[in-house]
Amino acid sequence: MTDTPELIAVGLGPGDPELITVKGLRAIQAADVIFAPQSRDGDTSIALQIATPWIDQSRQRIVTLPLPMTRDSGQLRPAWQAAATVMQQELGQHRRGVYLLLGDPLLYGTFVYLWRELRAAAPDITVSIIPGITSFAAAAAVSGIPLTMADERLIVVPASYETDAGALQRLLSDFTTVVLMKAGTALPAIVEALHQLNLIDHALYAERVGLAGEFITRDLRTLDLNHRPYLSLVIVRRGELL
Amino acid sequence: MTDTPELIAVGLGPGDPELITVKGLRAIQAADVIFAPQSRDGDTSIALQIATPWIDQSRQRIVTLPLPMTRDSGQLRPAWQAAATVMQQELGQHRRGVYLLLGDPLLYGTFVYLWRELRAAAPDITVSIIPGITSFAAAAAVSGIPLTMADERLIVVPASYETDAGALQRLLSDFTTVVLMKAGTALPAIVEALHQLNLIDHALYAERVGLAGEFITRDLRTLDLNHRPYLSLVIVRRGELL
Repeated sequence: MTDTPELIAVGLGPGDPELITVKGLRAIQAADVIFAPQSRDGDTSIALQIATPWIDQSRQRIVTLPLPMTRDSGQLRPAWQAAATVMQQELGQHRRGVYLLLGDPLLYGTFVYLWRELRAAAPDITVSIIPGITSFAAAAAVSGIPLTMADERLIVVPASYETDAGALQRLLSDFTTVVLMKAGTALPAIVEALHQLNLIDHALYAERVGLAGEFITRDLRTLDLNHRPYLSLVIVRRGELL
Repeated sequence: MTDTPELIAVGLGPGDPELITVKGLRAIQAADVIFAPQSRDGDTSIALQIATPWIDQSRQRIVTLPLPMTRDSGQLRPAWQAAATVMQQELGQHRRGVYLLLGDPLLYGTFVYLWRELRAAAPDITVSIIPGITSFAAAAAVSGIPLTMADERLIVVPASYETDAGALQRLLSDFTTVVLMKAGTALPAIVEALHQLNLIDHALYAERVGLAGEFITRDLRTLDLNHRPYLSLVIVRRGELL
């Protein structure tokens, strides 16, 4: 047991367990300990649910890390530090670990924050990242919507932060394809902007792509704007739809 | 043989065969016929090279489709139509086909054009898409560069079309993370803009990610600007680098 402890952040993709990469799958199967984020309300970790087919619970140790669903860094920072401490201890004993997360680890992922704390606490741990399929790529694939062709530009924004109606309209005017992640709470503003710009028939709404309860529609006129799930996105495309 | 012919476009990811999804791998292994694009100069298809570990040539038929590397639709359209005709004939005999391509099928992929021709020629063929890891997600993962955190926006542009120096500077000023795909021919303009905006130390250059000859560097000051490969990209990030 003299080898360096190793942690690999694995992007699981949007939900369908088969949308993990072969590399990610092999990293999970080679791991001694599997870390998964869990919101504090005690729900099963969505990441852990997705990875279940690839985990052998008789052989592999599972450690869930409580991470609050909040933007308040006063709450988040201590949670990341506590998680980093747990990871450090576990990796001291069980050399090879993976950290599971939805989508791609570097696109609005939680791992970057954890990594920072872990590096400060335990610089000897080797950290690497395996990319994952994003929810918007999966939604586009299910629906056959091109993201970009030829000279087109793609922009990805976190809709819940895009609270300025004018700025949102400019984005939708300036770019061929706009991906609005975490659309839930912003849905009324998004639908309003799409009506204003006559783009309501150029959009796709997707919720829980690849998970139980998946819902995908091109008819944003009839969306229930009071239903605002976190795992939701809107793709708006000015160019050709297939 | 009464079942409907089926074609699945499989995103192979950027180059490393293990960055395919499990779903993509299974689609390839279940296929009777495997289509791969090939530039007309007779080079081996890069897509086919990547997928080689997953193909059983004793059992599966491989058909390469000549597609010229040009923006001239006068040349491209007949090539796509010819490819669609070949696909239609092959799928009439060998029911299950996959079309291989690098990265993600819907992000600057060739499949969308082929699909259009195929649907016109043979609307009875069932077509579906399996998403793939993009080269920029893989480059970010190798280098540990966050693409987006919290309220940040990501923009992806085809650098070879971004020939207006002012427009390029505005993009680099307005967005936290800018991904410049197909950077090769645009490298001199990109490096010039990065110097102008004091962002030269906030960029990553990646060439042939996951393929033989992979080259990734954060030192864009010393890049050979005369070497301009097609499979290259630059990620510029104003925000925190890890």
